[in-house]
Amino acid sequence: MLYSTILAGGSGTRLWPLSRAGRPKFLHQLTGTDRSLLQATVDRLAPLSSPAQVYVVTGAAHAAAIASQLPQVPPENILAEPSPKDSCAAVSLASAVLARRDPDAIMAAFSADHLIGDQDRFTQAILQAADAARNGYLSTIGIRPAHAEVRFGYLKLGEDVTADARKVSEFKEKPSREVAAAYLESGQYLWNAGIFVFAVRTFLDELRRQRPQLSEGIGRIADAWDSPARDEVLADVWPGLEKISVDYGVFEAAAAAGKVATVPADVAWSDVGDFDSLAESLATDDSGNLLITGDSLVVARDVKDSVIVSTTGRVIAIVGLDNVVVADTGDALLVCDRSRAQEVKQVVDELRSRGCEGYL
Amino acid sequence: MLYSTILAGGSGTRLWPLSRAGRPKFLHQLTGTDRSLLQATVDRLAPLSSPAQVYVVTGAAHAAAIASQLPQVPPENILAEPSPKDSCAAVSLASAVLARRDPDAIMAAFSADHLIGDQDRFTQAILQAADAARNGYLSTIGIRPAHAEVRFGYLKLGEDVTADARKVSEFKEKPSREVAAAYLESGQYLWNAGIFVFAVRTFLDELRRQRPQLSEGIGRIADAWDSPARDEVLADVWPGLEKISVDYGVFEAAAAAGKVATVPADVAWSDVGDFDSLAESLATDDSGNLLITGDSLVVARDVKDSVIVSTTGRVIAIVGLDNVVVADTGDALLVCDRSRAQEVKQVVDELRSRGCEGYL
Repeated sequence: MLYSTILAGGSGTRLWPLSRAGRPKFLHQLTGTDRSLLQATVDRLAPLSSPAQVYVVTGAAHAAAIASQLPQVPPENILAEPSPKDSCAAVSLASAVLARRDPDAIMAAFSADHLIGDQDRFTQAILQAADAARNGYLSTIGIRPAHAEVRFGYLKLGEDVTADARKVSEFKEKPSREVAAAYLESGQYLWNAGIFVFAVRTFLDELRRQRPQLSEGIGRIADAWDSPARDEVLADVWPGLEKISVDYGVFEAAAAAGKVATVPADVAWSDVGDFDSLAESLATDDSGNLLITGDSLVVARDVKDSVIVSTTGRVIAIVGLDNVVVADTGDALLVCDRSRAQEVKQVVDELRSRGCEGYL
Repeated sequence: MLYSTILAGGSGTRLWPLSRAGRPKFLHQLTGTDRSLLQATVDRLAPLSSPAQVYVVTGAAHAAAIASQLPQVPPENILAEPSPKDSCAAVSLASAVLARRDPDAIMAAFSADHLIGDQDRFTQAILQAADAARNGYLSTIGIRPAHAEVRFGYLKLGEDVTADARKVSEFKEKPSREVAAAYLESGQYLWNAGIFVFAVRTFLDELRRQRPQLSEGIGRIADAWDSPARDEVLADVWPGLEKISVDYGVFEAAAAAGKVATVPADVAWSDVGDFDSLAESLATDDSGNLLITGDSLVVARDVKDSVIVSTTGRVIAIVGLDNVVVADTGDALLVCDRSRAQEVKQVVDELRSRGCEGYL
């Protein structure tokens, strides 16, 4: 029995104007198919968990859209948070609710908005991580780095746990370019993909040890979850919960105590951080262009290595440009040099500072 | 008494998607102000003609929009053509209708979609051309070339007519780059700005001599214009009229016969042929950008020498691009390298060949 919990939080600011606070990136078809990132995440878990074993933790504002995209997931498995409290609260909530429904549960936690290739190797790695979890480890999946990436955190490999799993001796924050190159060179560091696999009992024990207040609050909420008191307790307790990531909040110190294992996996993995990384993760046409354009009609004359996204059904004509991003939505348009796709975050910041909340 | 006739024809394909068959460029605010090209053209004529002396020749589809933009022009001065027959028919129609209303009229013909600077010098040149017209010449305005332009036709200067006017010895078609450079070097060639000034009696005499069939057809139409028979005669005669420009149809041979004069004018003149030439004609901001964006909110980060046009009221964010054109309309979007602005015509051709008539 393996449960899968999907963390559907974060708005994906760097994918503006497609991704919005009201319709974040995981709800969009950024997969090269007609499935959203969220749907593709659930599809990918089919060999691991039945739909009844799939959980989603998300903001209250997105629960309905998620239920609509995932009709096979039981509504009671969609856990709506009153406000964002980062991943430690989200993982803890899912673990605690699940522990009350199935105390022996093994649970894997995934992001709703990542792209992962190599389905068979991915499934294999999760099953191996679940084995380590049954042996009492808090497990992770470590992606073998494809290049010296500075946008991700890293896991430093420690001693062998099993034939497939190694201890994690240290969690490393996003490195400088030089450090990332040294990590790659050494072969002793893996990308932290934000995938965690554990017995909920083990995780909740570690949470209690490291973050007793958060543990106590989550415990009260979980006790009330499947009862009429849920909303009242949530309203009472949730606002005071500590806001911290599960990496910093639990796994770092657990790793230092020798309790974290990782399964190195050779899979294509992307956090779909911006339009540039999106195009690197998905198949492009003969000109190197990625088109996610729905009903829109694209007329491209001499356009190369570009990303064209549209939700409007308009005619989009592009002439004589390389390495651009054109993202066309009903109320906002982005035209961006592809190498500067990260700066889209600053555009959103500027809109916020100008008071244009309706466009965020 | 000087009458001004504005030729409001042509759709301005290279300014797609702003300019459309249904809403051609002269109706758009491409002037750096809130006036349309058409309105700016009429404004410019204020020192020359009273509103009652302003005529417009246009397609039937645009007569209402023009009347709405020019409330000061008497409706009976807006002459609607049943179908486009090029400028010879348009100029002839205005001349013939005007000759019946005022046989001694001096008339100047202008395009509705040109930008002209240096108002005082422009007015002066038209008055000088009108003097030559009173002396029996078919007059034109010749723009002193600012550079070796290949997109325009040229007028070759002949002998002096007055202190201000010269004969035109020859009309020259759009030259090659080398020929244009030689024209510029010689100082004996002026840009043909498509501005004609003449006594309507002189023009109609020359029309009768050179194009007797067109003259006869236009005469029948003009005889019926201010009568209940107008529509019937138009329907009968108009479809058979010769389709030819007034340059080729009348002025070229008239020049060869020594009947054409030109007033050289040092004014800034542009035919607003495409988004590139538009930006060269209008004031740009400190970054060299031309923004014609109405209610749209533009967030530009490190954007230079670009043209941003929007009619949608959307947010438009542009990041890290130079020399691009972004033209944003309700149902169509153009993103184009500015140096390839001429290729917008091919986009329109492609849309036509794909059967997308609704976007033309």
